[in-house]
Order: sequence, then C-alpha cells, then structure tokens
Amino acid sequence: LIARLGVVGLGLLGGSVAKAALVRGVAQEVVGFDVNPTTAATAKALAIVSRVADSVDSLAAQVDVVILATPVGTMRSLLTILAAHERPWFMDVGSTKQSVISEATAALGKGIERFIPAHPIAGGERSGPEAARDDLFVGRHAILTPLPANAPELLVSARTFWTQLGASVIEMSAAQHDAIFSAVSHVPHLASFALVAHYADRSDGPLLFKHAGGGFRDFARISGSSPVMWRDIALANKAAVLPDLDRYIDALQAMRHAIADGDGPYLTDTMTRARSMRARWLAGEFDTPAD
Amino acid sequence: LIARLGVVGLGLLGGSVAKAALVRGVAQEVVGFDVNPTTAATAKALAIVSRVADSVDSLAAQVDVVILATPVGTMRSLLTILAAHERPWFMDVGSTKQSVISEATAALGKGIERFIPAHPIAGGERSGPEAARDDLFVGRHAILTPLPANAPELLVSARTFWTQLGASVIEMSAAQHDAIFSAVSHVPHLASFALVAHYADRSDGPLLFKHAGGGFRDFARISGSSPVMWRDIALANKAAVLPDLDRYIDALQAMRHAIADGDGPYLTDTMTRARSMRARWLAGEFDTPAD
Repeated sequence: LIARLGVVGLGLLGGSVAKAALVRGVAQEVVGFDVNPTTAATAKALAIVSRVADSVDSLAAQVDVVILATPVGTMRSLLTILAAHERPWFMDVGSTKQSVISEATAALGKGIERFIPAHPIAGGERSGPEAARDDLFVGRHAILTPLPANAPELLVSARTFWTQLGASVIEMSAAQHDAIFSAVSHVPHLASFALVAHYADRSDGPLLFKHAGGGFRDFARISGSSPVMWRDIALANKAAVLPDLDRYIDALQAMRHAIADGDGPYLTDTMTRARSMRARWLAGEFDTPAD
Repeated sequence: LIARLGVVGLGLLGGSVAKAALVRGVAQEVVGFDVNPTTAATAKALAIVSRVADSVDSLAAQVDVVILATPVGTMRSLLTILAAHERPWFMDVGSTKQSVISEATAALGKGIERFIPAHPIAGGERSGPEAARDDLFVGRHAILTPLPANAPELLVSARTFWTQLGASVIEMSAAQHDAIFSAVSHVPHLASFALVAHYADRSDGPLLFKHAGGGFRDFARISGSSPVMWRDIALANKAAVLPDLDRYIDALQAMRHAIADGDGPYLTDTMTRARSMRARWLAGEFDTPAD
C-alpha cells in the first residue's frame, strides 16, 4: 500500500491511475496536480483525487510515488522539479521510452535510479478527467523498460503497482518498446490523422463526410486523439517512426503500381495476407507469454 | 410487391437483400443462385431464399427482378446471360458504378434500359449467407446512378425497392459516386490492407501483433474484408483511386517531412484539423439532405 500517491496530469490516463488507485486500495490518498486549474477542480469534484496540490513542487513534497501522466514533451521540465525531492520515486506513462529516458537522465542526474519508465497500454480517443475509469488498466499490458540504475526492490514495487491496477506487466528494452509501438500505434495514428486532415482540406470535404460509412469511421477513430500528445509522440520517437512511415509509404506505392498495372494477383495476395494475419491475431495466436 | 425476386450471389449483401425482401414482404418469393453450391445450400437451409436455381439462366427465366450481388469483376459475364431474358429488370449492388455501366452497356445493348446501377452503403467485414441480416439496409443510404435510357416508372420501382428495405435513396451521377467512394471507402480499405499486409510480412510481425491494441484493431478492421471483392473494386475504379492514393501518399510524405524537421506546429495543425472535422462529422453536421 502506498500512503500518498501523487499524479501529475489528470486527463484520461492520469485520472484513471488516480481513480483506480483509490478504488482498488492501492494508495491511501492521492494528491493530484494539473496545469489546467479547471481540470484539477473537476478531478477533485469527481473524487478522482483526494486532494489537489498548488504546484508540482508542493505535490512532490507530500508524496511517496509520483506518476507523470502528461504529454511526452513536458517530461524534462517536470523531472527537473522532481529532482529536488529525495523521498518519492517516479514513473511516467508515456508512449515513447528512449526520449523520456534521455530527458530523465539529463534532469535527474544520479536521481535517475528513482525513475522507472513505464507505458500502460490503455487509452481511447476521449480525454479529460470525466473520461477516467478505474478499470482502464484491467486486462491490459503495462510495459516497463527498467534502467540499469533501478534497484530490484523498486522494480518489484513498480510491478506490484500496475498489477494491482489490473494490468499484466511486461519488461523489455526501451529501444524494443519504441520500435514496436512505432509500428502498431504511432504510424497507424499518423496515417489516420493524415487521411482525415487531407479530406478536411479538400473542397469536396463536406460531401465526402456526408457519404462516409462504417469502414471510414473505424479508420478515422484514432484521428480523434489529442493533437498535442501525438505531436510529442511523433517527434520523440522519430528515429523509429520515420523508417516505419517510409516503409508504409513504399507499401502504398507498391499497391498503387499494382492497381495502375492491373496486377490482380498482387492485390489478391496482399489483401489475403492482411486478412489472414488479422484473423490469426484476433484468434489469439500471438498472445504468447511475455518475451 | 414483387412476385418473384432473383438474387445472384448469396453472400452478406445478396443474402441480406434476399432475407430482407422476404421478411419485410417486398417479394412474395426469392429465387437465389450462388456459384458456390455450399453457399446456395446454406442460404436455402437458413430460409434466406425461397428456392435455389440451378443456373443464372434458369433464375432469370423465373423472376421479375434480378439483383446482382457478386464481385464487380463478374458483372459482364452475368449480364451477358441476363441479356437473353426480356422480362426481368436488373440492379447491381456494386461499390463502383462507371465500370459496371460500361460492362452493362457492352453486355446488354438496347437492354441497358432495364438496368439500374445501384450501391447500397452497407456491409461489414463478415461475409457469407450466415452474416446476412434483414435490417442491414435500415437507416443506410442506397445510391442510384440512373442511366438516360431508364424509364421513369422503372426508377420509381427501384427507389421503392430500397426504401422498402429501409434505406434512404440518393441519386447522383456515376462519376460523382466513384469519386466520393474512392475517397471515403476504397482508399481507406487499401490503406488498411497495405499496412496490415506489410506488418504480416515483417520478420517481427508476431511480436508487433502481440502488442497491437485498440487503435490498431480499429484501423485494421477493414483489412478483414474480401480480397476478391476489393481487388475488383480497386481495379474497376482505378481512375478515381489512383489520384486519391497519390494525394494520400503526398499527405503522408508531408507529415513525414514535418516529423523529420521537428515541425511541431505543422503536426499540431494537421492533427487538429483532422480531429475537428471528425467531431463535426460525428455531430451530424454533414448529414444534409440529398444533393
């Protein structure tokens, strides 16, 4: 049990960590902070947090653990504030890990031993504390990318924390994390944002949206996500995202040329490989134990 | 009321037309045909059709109206068979219209006056007669792209048919139809197929799919669609699909370069335009009357 948990950033992710920690008895008290006072007040009014702190500095002085649930681009300045506080240990929930680790190393110095990089795989296009759910992490993966400086006991605490929120914990290197999530999350988000923005810009945009159906709705759903969060992710993970985007563009070009050439077998083969991989995935074939 | 309705192709679309026509009293009897005898037998066993015909020729000899619910690539040979039968009038349900009209013109000659090109906007990644639903068209658009040769009374019958199946009928030119559905349906399907196939081909594919979450699931859903149907659509509508794919690739390239250049404002602007267009769409802003 954590006596006092601090949560910085009370949107969907941070709000859900706070709410779940209280509801599931993981923390006795949750102290929250959000840069937007309205968000903080809403979180307090919804009893997602026990109390609201005036600043990150004041929050850090009161708690045993700090969860940083803010866009990846804010990590450096937040960790610089936290560096002055020797009691708490820290976890982020960011979608990229190598960039966060490099900012944390710069901000914390020797204090990096108290920082455990984490990424719970949960979310949704809704945002804000109103969207927070105490079961957001149940049945989900929580990825930890531990640092050489982290003490084993601290890692046990981090694993316990996410397990108690209902997640299965998987450990991997930060580089492997970033490569995997570039492919399965970052590039699909960028592809969805790019398509929907392009149609929004077309002069026949309203006519297109009038006739858009269920397939487009699913494809476009992730374009409802937070622009600031996804800008930060794209920039922070550019080392993995750029080659993945290039490979995706190549795959689209190959499909384009097959259509131009009337190459039916190429199209059927490609579509069949996609369809059968998706079917195997949905059948659970890749749900192997952590590796 | 139609005394005898014929449906060629008893998959999700054709099966749903047959089932809905019987359940909603649009036809007294439905005669079905499918090139796959198992599919036809299943449709009969599920009472989706009243009877199964041995051939398209025999079906056409028995019915007043024929609905062609087969992949776009089969239209020419089917319409050539139908051309010999003078009683029934015909509608297709294909996702492309200009190519179908040109094949119908070649196959039917003067008989083209009895052919009304139609596209009900309904579907799903499930296929086969087991997936057929009598409410598949309820609340959906049914697009007609009438020909100059179609008699006004026949158009009234076609409109009535889809209205009785629960759809709202919209008329437009075949060229406009193909331009709109290239953008909102064909390109998203190709983009989804290309991404999922590319990941299926990667050596780390199984690891990627292990970690794929809800965003990827939505993006990938339409890659579960029928490869033969989508091959035919891509090839039949290439005049609209190729420039749309090129523009989409350009949009992805622009996003790629913004990431490489660290151009945060470009990314935030693009993502915000996408997010806000999607929100306006979901709020019903583009659900204007037919134009």
